[in-house]
Amino acid sequence: MLPVLGVDADDTLWENEERFHEVEQRFRDLMTPWADSETADAALLATERANIARHGYGIKGFVLSMVLTAVEISDAAIDARSLAGIVGWGHEMLAHPIELLDGVPEALDALGSTHRLLLITKGDLGDQLGKVRRSGLADRFWRVEVVPEKDPQTYRDVLDRHGVDPAEFTMVGNSVKSDVLPVLAIGGWAIHVPHTTTWVFEEPDPDELAGVEFPIVDRLGDVPGLLAG
Amino acid sequence: MLPVLGVDADDTLWENEERFHEVEQRFRDLMTPWADSETADAALLATERANIARHGYGIKGFVLSMVLTAVEISDAAIDARSLAGIVGWGHEMLAHPIELLDGVPEALDALGSTHRLLLITKGDLGDQLGKVRRSGLADRFWRVEVVPEKDPQTYRDVLDRHGVDPAEFTMVGNSVKSDVLPVLAIGGWAIHVPHTTTWVFEEPDPDELAGVEFPIVDRLGDVPGLLAG
Repeated sequence: MLPVLGVDADDTLWENEERFHEVEQRFRDLMTPWADSETADAALLATERANIARHGYGIKGFVLSMVLTAVEISDAAIDARSLAGIVGWGHEMLAHPIELLDGVPEALDALGSTHRLLLITKGDLGDQLGKVRRSGLADRFWRVEVVPEKDPQTYRDVLDRHGVDPAEFTMVGNSVKSDVLPVLAIGGWAIHVPHTTTWVFEEPDPDELAGVEFPIVDRLGDVPGLLAG
Repeated sequence: MLPVLGVDADDTLWENEERFHEVEQRFRDLMTPWADSETADAALLATERANIARHGYGIKGFVLSMVLTAVEISDAAIDARSLAGIVGWGHEMLAHPIELLDGVPEALDALGSTHRLLLITKGDLGDQLGKVRRSGLADRFWRVEVVPEKDPQTYRDVLDRHGVDPAEFTMVGNSVKSDVLPVLAIGGWAIHVPHTTTWVFEEPDPDELAGVEFPIVDRLGDVPGLLAG
């Protein structure tokens, strides 16, 4: 049996953060009567941080946080139609076409010839599974797992469920915090494929980075060569 | 190896719909200036129906539908603070203590001695896993699966992933539409344990019921005896 390679999805296989950045800009614009961009950004981030445990990652929680923040920043002066419009932004995000990153199908084809590919992603269940389906990449994966959080215990549980020994498991993804550190923590291997931007919630704790080493490559297409080496 | 018994969670192991009914009453009350109860109910249901595919099942989608419906019913006359309040109702629902149905732990203990128990539930991933954790029942289950929809293909995929032959699988739950019919459709067995109320979205298509037979028991505690018989 081929070894198992874990592969992240958002911003590893396809654009994701860009969608959020576009909507964050609309949010700043909507808040203009009451707050400058920095204040709007800081307030939204604070709301998201306060709610991430109950909302989870994903578009629906992001929308709920924008609604709460807009009411707070405007001191409830914002009109109801604008708040419904924020929910509409979320619907647009949920329906957005998938934009695969360069060379992803070819990279997965190469990786799939040497590994069983296990997609591991966090966020809203239906949205994440829908993106896998719409991406046209579903057939390239052995298994797909949507998890609420990417911490060491979650990886342990996922690998246990699929009968994979962590010592023989490698994870590939764009987030050091979610795709690299927790996998190293359970005795696995990880390869970092940075994306152009990193969401502030995905910035790793500098203390956790001390003394930790892992390979970094420019794109998913570089991973097959690295694994062969 | 023991055979696998699938077990639904919401309204099979613990109260769930009651939480929604309480909040629907608050929603009716909030809409009083603009609509009577029947109109408010009908409008909310229509919004939920239009959005179920994008929102999925669960509290976050329910909240988004209430916000949209409140803006629509009030023709945007509702104040922003009330809309933030609707989001707050969702937070209350997410934090609500689990109320196990009568005899559930004992029933699971009995069932777990003859079967590997596979919890299969639909809804928001983090919320559903959090409820399993808070219920104190997690250790009684062999595996837990949160799925976006309970249709025949989903059951086929879940059973395939866990190496279970549908012909040797039985599902227990309160929804004929979600827990019984799709399992019968893939050649499995199912036992209906009705709850006091059935959400309109869970009402089965009468055509699909024609000629279909399955056992119905009053409570989960009656299932061990039925399976032994």
